[in-house]
Amino acid sequence: MSYLDDIAWNSDGLVPAIAQDAVTGRILMMAWMNPEALQLSVEEKRAVYWSRSRQKLWRKGEESGHVQLIKELRLDCDNDVIVLQIEQLGGIACHTGRESCFYRVLEDEQWRSVDPVIKDPKDIYR
Amino acid sequence: MSYLDDIAWNSDGLVPAIAQDAVTGRILMMAWMNPEALQLSVEEKRAVYWSRSRQKLWRKGEESGHVQLIKELRLDCDNDVIVLQIEQLGGIACHTGRESCFYRVLEDEQWRSVDPVIKDPKDIYR
Repeated sequence: MSYLDDIAWNSDGLVPAIAQDAVTGRILMMAWMNPEALQLSVEEKRAVYWSRSRQKLWRKGEESGHVQLIKELRLDCDNDVIVLQIEQLGGIACHTGRESCFYRVLEDEQWRSVDPVIKDPKDIYR
Repeated sequence: MSYLDDIAWNSDGLVPAIAQDAVTGRILMMAWMNPEALQLSVEEKRAVYWSRSRQKLWRKGEESGHVQLIKELRLDCDNDVIVLQIEQLGGIACHTGRESCFYRVLEDEQWRSVDPVIKDPKDIYR
């Protein structure tokens, strides 16, 4: 039995993976992993996801340099969600150039952007 | 346009919702919401999820008393994940009687329980 066999993969063979800043505790993003992505993440100690839109492995930071170094991996009670405690290189997890993908807050029944763009995406993805 | 229309609901009409302790930053659990669950969560300022196993609305804490009071709601860049900043009544989010559902850490390629049971589930669910 491998630690991969303990996961309750969904009908697409994926599990959600939440990336949290290991120091500040900020939730930076949620993405998906298949078994190969999780195994590579463990072996390489950096986050490797499965891109559902591109249908391929996605080594986080491969284009942007915004690699996520894994400090700790946790599994939930139902075996169907993973939390990654990470160090976010460059301090930017979101493709919009923000620290976190969760930059919109519900206020007066509207989602309002409240976090600054740290780096223009044009300068991240060339 | 309602804030509900901004969500990219998945093919089952659901969105993942991550509950994070608003004070400590600890990630407590991830569950799912349908539009009704999200609307009720906003209106009642407490977490209401959609139980996929029971196929019904699940007012978190309705049996256990472990209600989650919502302090803030955030949406991610892809409109398909929500983060709830919450106050966890009773200090227990997990049905195993632990603070967080993420009580297992990957060590030596095994998922090891590292967090204590705060209250016996037999005493939580009578």
